[in-house]
Amino acid sequence: MHMYDILNRKRLGKALSRQEIEYFVRGCTTGEIPDYQLSALLMAICIQGMNEEETAWLTMAMARSGQMADLSHIPGIKVDKHSTGGVGDKVTLVAAPLAAACGVTVAKMSGRGLGYTGGTIDKLESIPGFTTQLPPETFADIAGTVGVCIVSQSGELAPADKKLYALRDVTATVESLPLIASSIMSKKLAGGSDCIVLDVKTGSGAFMKTLEDSRALARAMVSIGSQAGKPTAALITDMNRPLGMTVGNALEMEEACQVLCGQGPEDVRRLSVAVASAMVWLAKKASGMEEAQALVEEKLRDGSARERMEEMIRRQGGDPEVVRHPECLPQGRVSRQVLAASSGWLGAMDTQGIGRCSVLLGAGREKKDSPLDYGAGIRFAKTLGSCVEKGEVLATVYAETEQIAEEGAKVLEKALRIAPVPLEIPPLFYDWITEKDVKKK
Amino acid sequence: MHMYDILNRKRLGKALSRQEIEYFVRGCTTGEIPDYQLSALLMAICIQGMNEEETAWLTMAMARSGQMADLSHIPGIKVDKHSTGGVGDKVTLVAAPLAAACGVTVAKMSGRGLGYTGGTIDKLESIPGFTTQLPPETFADIAGTVGVCIVSQSGELAPADKKLYALRDVTATVESLPLIASSIMSKKLAGGSDCIVLDVKTGSGAFMKTLEDSRALARAMVSIGSQAGKPTAALITDMNRPLGMTVGNALEMEEACQVLCGQGPEDVRRLSVAVASAMVWLAKKASGMEEAQALVEEKLRDGSARERMEEMIRRQGGDPEVVRHPECLPQGRVSRQVLAASSGWLGAMDTQGIGRCSVLLGAGREKKDSPLDYGAGIRFAKTLGSCVEKGEVLATVYAETEQIAEEGAKVLEKALRIAPVPLEIPPLFYDWITEKDVKKK
Repeated sequence: MHMYDILNRKRLGKALSRQEIEYFVRGCTTGEIPDYQLSALLMAICIQGMNEEETAWLTMAMARSGQMADLSHIPGIKVDKHSTGGVGDKVTLVAAPLAAACGVTVAKMSGRGLGYTGGTIDKLESIPGFTTQLPPETFADIAGTVGVCIVSQSGELAPADKKLYALRDVTATVESLPLIASSIMSKKLAGGSDCIVLDVKTGSGAFMKTLEDSRALARAMVSIGSQAGKPTAALITDMNRPLGMTVGNALEMEEACQVLCGQGPEDVRRLSVAVASAMVWLAKKASGMEEAQALVEEKLRDGSARERMEEMIRRQGGDPEVVRHPECLPQGRVSRQVLAASSGWLGAMDTQGIGRCSVLLGAGREKKDSPLDYGAGIRFAKTLGSCVEKGEVLATVYAETEQIAEEGAKVLEKALRIAPVPLEIPPLFYDWITEKDVKKK
Repeated sequence: MHMYDILNRKRLGKALSRQEIEYFVRGCTTGEIPDYQLSALLMAICIQGMNEEETAWLTMAMARSGQMADLSHIPGIKVDKHSTGGVGDKVTLVAAPLAAACGVTVAKMSGRGLGYTGGTIDKLESIPGFTTQLPPETFADIAGTVGVCIVSQSGELAPADKKLYALRDVTATVESLPLIASSIMSKKLAGGSDCIVLDVKTGSGAFMKTLEDSRALARAMVSIGSQAGKPTAALITDMNRPLGMTVGNALEMEEACQVLCGQGPEDVRRLSVAVASAMVWLAKKASGMEEAQALVEEKLRDGSARERMEEMIRRQGGDPEVVRHPECLPQGRVSRQVLAASSGWLGAMDTQGIGRCSVLLGAGREKKDSPLDYGAGIRFAKTLGSCVEKGEVLATVYAETEQIAEEGAKVLEKALRIAPVPLEIPPLFYDWITEKDVKKK
């Protein structure tokens, strides 16, 4: 087999065979295929596309390019959850213990945040004493007994994806549906769970700006999961606004705990219940989505989800008290309010601007090794569409120094637009994609 | 300006600006743009194409990436001639002195052969004593006084093209009309002549297999010449058979001399007259093509073209006697005949097989530094379409050893097919493309 022929076929818009795809992914991993051939192939794929089979083969080959997590010794059906990234998205922190309370096993490896969106690992690490680095046996033991354990990725999952992503990043070949879908799913497959629930964000603050693109990405990923023998379902949800009322590590942790205690913002609650219901349904702990949702709601109401969270925190070295007393979490040293410059309606919340603000405040990372300020972040006083009076507080920013808070407040002010008339608020949910939808077509 | 944005624009099928094209060609020449970005861009260009303006800008940027030959001190209108490569193509050896005899100046830098097609320089060097490496002043002096001087390329013409070509060669991005046209024309523009005549081959033995593709390539190159201010014309001629009755360096030299002496095969004569006429017409030595052709025919008949050839050979250190006595040229040590295995008509001459045979015999180069056997080659006894009897001689191969001749004969045998019925013979000329055709559209 020759890389030249593979390049030639894709240049002409032909489909590659499974062998050809496995050949170039292997050559990418070993370094035998030079970067200039890989980047030319990525450009050809980007322009000519890949069909569903090719995309699945690429995903599986990348998943197998490094360590594959083996969760087979952990009892129960393991369900993973992934979000394509949103500002203020703390859904995993609620949905994972919720699903665990319903009998699902969540043995999850998660990543740290980079750029505008935070990482679940960073949020958990804002809990004093909490560790996300555990020996494999401890991880398996906690997941098996508590039903939920979340650790940071150890070793290198899907190194071929890492290499190809780095090349895509410098050759303008990031924007390709099959390449995006395979990149995400390769890491999910390598993660070793039996089923996968995806939360595909859509809107100005999401990777996919239009509903059409988001639906296509969701379909592509569900199709990959299906072909890989891992039941997968995807929700398409709004990212034209931050999720919930907080952005920042301890602030989001606090909000997640509030939801588990039966309080907290409605959007976080609804989305978490939906994700957890999908996890329960995929794990066959309910016969349908309605039954799954009823079970999830019950476990939220009766406190068993909160108990799972407390137990997971305890077993991972943290103080379970934070769940009921989030004031124990780190808090920003200084704060500054952002006020409404005019009266009207909160008409637009620029999530990219909000994300930029959170990185500036110290809640997110500019680079891989940027230090985090766990207490830093934003607490909104108003939600998208709220009626506001001039001078009213729109949000409060928290940071380590007056200067940082000042700068953050300025960035945030620009991200929040007051409209003179009430605007239509986009729905929180748009669509649901399951294997049935993918097979139908 | 960023390479990322250039990649992104071309990925999306947009046209690049002159500045963007000059930017990446400069970065390619200096080595500042890494190969993986260049190869991704080449793939994007290959798939998305380039319009006529972009192609001309690319050509000019590559032409200016290294030394530009300055022929301004040589009097007269300098006309260059280029063939896209054919087996047995010795037209330059006839057309150049023919054009010179009509008052055109041919101050030509030419390349050595690589692969199946021979190089004009190699053919000239088969003349004992002939040198193709001359000091610039001598080159200018011979071209100015004799009207024709052919030397081998000194220095590096269009280094950006060389680098991009090497990348295209390993990334399956050779087959792109704008990239092929700009690669050829960048070297012609750097060669410094005022006008350019192109012989675009079409057919099984040519780079362009179909008439449509050949016509498109011819149009693209004529358009580039026109945009660069260098009047350009292109002939589209057949390459479903070798040109003339010989393949090999001394053998082709011999045939060229025969034509200049008023003998030799009709196809070589006709094509050489056509090319020379175009050169004469572009140099404005005749008011139209008919007048140009009449002038060329006269200079062939009255021996002045032959005299120019003799004078060029003498001035470049060779023995001018070879023109009237080609038996002075090197001859293959051993020969072997290829006989017709059956009676019928010579129905197909696989030029690629013939080219392979000539390389095997020692007449062409496998690699850049392969040694040549000037006397090696093929002399055909039959032309495409000839009626043959079983056992009749089809061709004779010449080589250094019996073994090589034997192997060559075997390869040649397979390249010549006897058909049981007479087949239609393709025409020698297909079309003519001039600036008028390009501007019309």
